[in-house]
Amino acid sequence: MKIAIAGYGNLGRGVELSIRQNADCELFGVFTRRPPETVKTATGAPVFHIDDILKYKGEVDVVVICGGSATDLPKQTPELAAHFCVVDSFDTHAKIPEHFAAVDAAAKSAGTVAVISAGWDPGMFSLNRLYASCILPDGRDYTFWGKGVSQGHSDAIRRVDGVLDAKQYTIPTDAALSAVRSGTNPELTTRDKHKRECFVVAKDGADKEKIEKEIKEMPNYFADYDTTVHFISKEELDKNHSGIPHGGFVIRSGKTGIDNEHTHIIEYSLKLDSNPEFTASVLVACARAAYKMNKEGIVGAKTVFDIAPSYMSAKSGEELRKEML
Amino acid sequence: MKIAIAGYGNLGRGVELSIRQNADCELFGVFTRRPPETVKTATGAPVFHIDDILKYKGEVDVVVICGGSATDLPKQTPELAAHFCVVDSFDTHAKIPEHFAAVDAAAKSAGTVAVISAGWDPGMFSLNRLYASCILPDGRDYTFWGKGVSQGHSDAIRRVDGVLDAKQYTIPTDAALSAVRSGTNPELTTRDKHKRECFVVAKDGADKEKIEKEIKEMPNYFADYDTTVHFISKEELDKNHSGIPHGGFVIRSGKTGIDNEHTHIIEYSLKLDSNPEFTASVLVACARAAYKMNKEGIVGAKTVFDIAPSYMSAKSGEELRKEML
Repeated sequence: MKIAIAGYGNLGRGVELSIRQNADCELFGVFTRRPPETVKTATGAPVFHIDDILKYKGEVDVVVICGGSATDLPKQTPELAAHFCVVDSFDTHAKIPEHFAAVDAAAKSAGTVAVISAGWDPGMFSLNRLYASCILPDGRDYTFWGKGVSQGHSDAIRRVDGVLDAKQYTIPTDAALSAVRSGTNPELTTRDKHKRECFVVAKDGADKEKIEKEIKEMPNYFADYDTTVHFISKEELDKNHSGIPHGGFVIRSGKTGIDNEHTHIIEYSLKLDSNPEFTASVLVACARAAYKMNKEGIVGAKTVFDIAPSYMSAKSGEELRKEML
Repeated sequence: MKIAIAGYGNLGRGVELSIRQNADCELFGVFTRRPPETVKTATGAPVFHIDDILKYKGEVDVVVICGGSATDLPKQTPELAAHFCVVDSFDTHAKIPEHFAAVDAAAKSAGTVAVISAGWDPGMFSLNRLYASCILPDGRDYTFWGKGVSQGHSDAIRRVDGVLDAKQYTIPTDAALSAVRSGTNPELTTRDKHKRECFVVAKDGADKEKIEKEIKEMPNYFADYDTTVHFISKEELDKNHSGIPHGGFVIRSGKTGIDNEHTHIIEYSLKLDSNPEFTASVLVACARAAYKMNKEGIVGAKTVFDIAPSYMSAKSGEELRKEML
């Protein structure tokens, strides 16, 4: 199976690295909007200009589209699905129905499979919400994010006057996690479930008290959260906070019995050293699924909900039943 | 969707209760080998003799077969799959390929869907092993069982001379769980991963020291495990140990990166107050899947690996994408 990568940022690089771990996959190359000669890939994979991608129509089996959800994917995914099997990680939840419809139309008329919104949320977290709700209809699910870096919140801190650089971690609160795991189905807002920890590099001579106050009182971003601010040096930030870890928890608690006397807790959690590399690894498994489904004559837009799990594996049905069931 | 239950033990009763929680499901009735008039169902559902089940061929959509894996299911599932869409919880791992083949032949010639080996292990745990291994091919997975009641080990204790009654809990060891969660991919046997806790009621005048020694030295069952024996009264056993809780963990730790520098931990866990009721809830979700798949013209034996998750839900694709993705 030959995979092309469209877009070469952190996610595209993650896909490049993930392909090396899958013996049935081969990286055809990276397609970029930048002048190809200015892009150096991590593994030395060839780089092409995105405008040339249709020239390789017969040679590429699946295109993994690694653009952003705001402006890239709404345009790129339908366009590319009209020529290739594709996978994207579209994550603007509110616009998924619209994106699905546009991609589905393109994929159906081209006879391709287009997997949208793959990754971990949407993606593996969605799958776990779905399975758990089917098994325990009389229940409630809770999604926690973190501990992980929030790019949006880090950017918001960097815009504060006197801040040189910053990194913000979203962290699930222990109290909320314990309450959910106890099976009492508490009412919890996103704010109850998470706290925020900020590592800030102040400019020389900046008023740290003022910066801290401004961060903690920032509406929407921090004002309603339990927020901690640590001032550290640029060196410390670069040394200890340069990674992009993330993760989280999907927990469903539900009842069964003649009188709802039995409580069950289903918990799925991720602890990821690299958010983009893990997301990329999910995209590659979905690229395999798109390829295998299309080989069987399946067409159209799909999400993880529509993919029988065996399609994500390189193993045969017999092997899976023997080794994994 | 009209569901019939074949076999009315703890699992059959669990299916009966689960059906009440699913608005799109209706219980047609319970089929039993016992004289029907001697079986009293939890919700007053009608009881029929299993020999009469073919009379209701047009009226039943799916039969959930709640027999045992040793002798019931290898016979019942192919027999019933020749007439109905069915679901079973066949859990003799080594014989799954053989069972699958027999059921597949019957289902294919009858045009039915037969979901085998549904439940949590095999079942949800298998799914999580599969998804995690597809995402993190360069990794390793670990399955822990418990804390939960092991019927086989409880029975083994009851056979010890001087024992009136007993209950055995299998418990994952904290040390093994921590080692796995640290991402170091340790070598661990089933014995390293679990300890055993026994609650024993001794007969009047029995030699407790001798009983404890005999339990702890019992080959296969206890000898190689860290085993604790508590002597308690019959009243205490009935009061505090009459439930059938279970659960466990499936954890995969894997690496990504240019030089495997990033570690990721995927963890799925269950904490179940009632093992049979939770298993039954999975069977009902799979009954829905069998019904929906068969409506689309799909036939043959299936496992959870072959079922696109959306088939397990009563919601439409649109609803799922909008609400759960």
